[in-house]
Amino acid sequence: MKITTNHQVRLRRHPVGMPRVTDFEIVDAPIPAPGEGEVLSRTLFLSLDPYMRGRISGVRSYAAGVEIGQVIVGGTVGEVVESRHAAFAPGDIVAGGVGWQAFGVAKAATLRKLDPRQAPVSTALGVLGMPGLTAYVGLLDIGRPKSGETVVVSAASGAVGAVVGQIAKLKGCRVVGVAGTAEKCAYVVKDLGFDACVNHRTQPLAAALQQACPNGIDVYFDNVGGPTLAAVLTLINVNARIPLCGMISEYNATEAPAGPNLRPLLFNRALIKGFIISDHLDRMGDFLRDCTGWVQDGTLKYREDVVTGLDQAPAAFIGLLEGKNFGKVVVKLADG
Amino acid sequence: MKITTNHQVRLRRHPVGMPRVTDFEIVDAPIPAPGEGEVLSRTLFLSLDPYMRGRISGVRSYAAGVEIGQVIVGGTVGEVVESRHAAFAPGDIVAGGVGWQAFGVAKAATLRKLDPRQAPVSTALGVLGMPGLTAYVGLLDIGRPKSGETVVVSAASGAVGAVVGQIAKLKGCRVVGVAGTAEKCAYVVKDLGFDACVNHRTQPLAAALQQACPNGIDVYFDNVGGPTLAAVLTLINVNARIPLCGMISEYNATEAPAGPNLRPLLFNRALIKGFIISDHLDRMGDFLRDCTGWVQDGTLKYREDVVTGLDQAPAAFIGLLEGKNFGKVVVKLADG
Repeated sequence: MKITTNHQVRLRRHPVGMPRVTDFEIVDAPIPAPGEGEVLSRTLFLSLDPYMRGRISGVRSYAAGVEIGQVIVGGTVGEVVESRHAAFAPGDIVAGGVGWQAFGVAKAATLRKLDPRQAPVSTALGVLGMPGLTAYVGLLDIGRPKSGETVVVSAASGAVGAVVGQIAKLKGCRVVGVAGTAEKCAYVVKDLGFDACVNHRTQPLAAALQQACPNGIDVYFDNVGGPTLAAVLTLINVNARIPLCGMISEYNATEAPAGPNLRPLLFNRALIKGFIISDHLDRMGDFLRDCTGWVQDGTLKYREDVVTGLDQAPAAFIGLLEGKNFGKVVVKLADG
Repeated sequence: MKITTNHQVRLRRHPVGMPRVTDFEIVDAPIPAPGEGEVLSRTLFLSLDPYMRGRISGVRSYAAGVEIGQVIVGGTVGEVVESRHAAFAPGDIVAGGVGWQAFGVAKAATLRKLDPRQAPVSTALGVLGMPGLTAYVGLLDIGRPKSGETVVVSAASGAVGAVVGQIAKLKGCRVVGVAGTAEKCAYVVKDLGFDACVNHRTQPLAAALQQACPNGIDVYFDNVGGPTLAAVLTLINVNARIPLCGMISEYNATEAPAGPNLRPLLFNRALIKGFIISDHLDRMGDFLRDCTGWVQDGTLKYREDVVTGLDQAPAAFIGLLEGKNFGKVVVKLADG
């Protein structure tokens, strides 16, 4: 039976504070037709990522925001239904960003063909996609970890943090995670090989980090901002590097909270550098070469938190912002 | 008449909050004798610099602190009285760091011979010394200003800030100072050629900076931390660079105050990097080559705030921390 109706999640209003499911609306719409050089795909998986909170906020950020009534932006893996570009044919599996909808049209140049024999195609949204590249670039290019150094990563069991910690282990570092449940801490230590993990909901952050980092902290890959960054700053070593990747602890704040005292940066000649992965797509080739191999040989482990059905995306996104997910959140829309 | 007694300022107690003159004591002591490879000099000029507040605080910093009863550390220009090293002879003028005393012994390797025909020897403590090198390295190596960019510098009329702004002008930037009096603001604009200056004591910082920086801020050379850094962060451009050189607004705080919200770093892929000039002495040759020329041809202007007599050093140092100085503070001990 040929499906003739598209299914979309659109923004109903810009959330204030923590988003609510009523900030979104689920609508039917026509399936669009691809123009010249474009490709129509059926969405198999939708990626949910913290950065989307900024896109729907209605305030200035580093990328164009989603306006009320628009489809929510997001990375997707889809199957080509119709192609008006020579590089793609029906049945191809592609990674792209058609957003929160069952069918989407995209320019061919924005799509990347996936080989399902290399790895499960959903990994193109996680360990072998934007989150993995974010971890790779932020850790290696800004964090520049050296063997024997101590690397701390927050949101350690998440899509980015899990890759950061495992690559840091490959580089010979002591790796300490920060996560929000005992299960997540156990996972990153036992399954991913981190040396230690601090539970920021139950342990006093500074004291627990100090105990887990007896030689201080050389690299802190920051996904969360807030009190974790403040605690880390009290423990950094000379020439410490802090790639600032995300500040999920603050994304729902209605007023920007105060930050940490920065004196330790001065005394330790340390660096904080914000980065946005779209500036670093030139590293995609290196990243895919290294990480595809590591995934295939089992060196680089990953965990997906799969939600089924586009209608569940708003609630799953809110859960992600609350830290209720466990691993990379993907919404499964259809079987490939 | 040969002087036979040394005169020293020692630390009586670690200051809590703003130092008081009673935290220091002025004592007589024997003139020391140089050992093999050492040089005895008579101090002509003593440099007063904000970093000294950290050294006398009794808490961990990036350098060894001054203990109670010890002579206060500081850069000096002196005349060699007795030398036990072949590179120096009586009558030579040397830059070094014998601290707050009339006579001092130093290892020859810590001294740099000055040529009084090149520039007044006191400049070796300011525009052609550590503060100048600090400005040169922080601006050029971390700030990396490009022609047409906007550079903001705090403590703009001070020993470091004045050099930062003038070099940034040489690089073709729009330069905006932040200073604490109308006279300082007028000086950096009219005498040093800055494009604008904000008086942080009388003007609302964020609004005044926004007006002075219509194209946003690309480089902020931070000497002060505190509210100025917070205001600047709201105005930074994509890829902004913030060399963190000092945080004089916080040096006397008994508890570390909260810092600025760092979300602008993330959205703008911006960088904050602390630095300590002693890590960058390899740049001394380049700095002296460039800046000596600029001082000699009048391109690089400087202003000294000269205090006479070692006994005045404690009060002058407190004045420096309060922003009461106007230009580079040097204490003149004797005529060369």
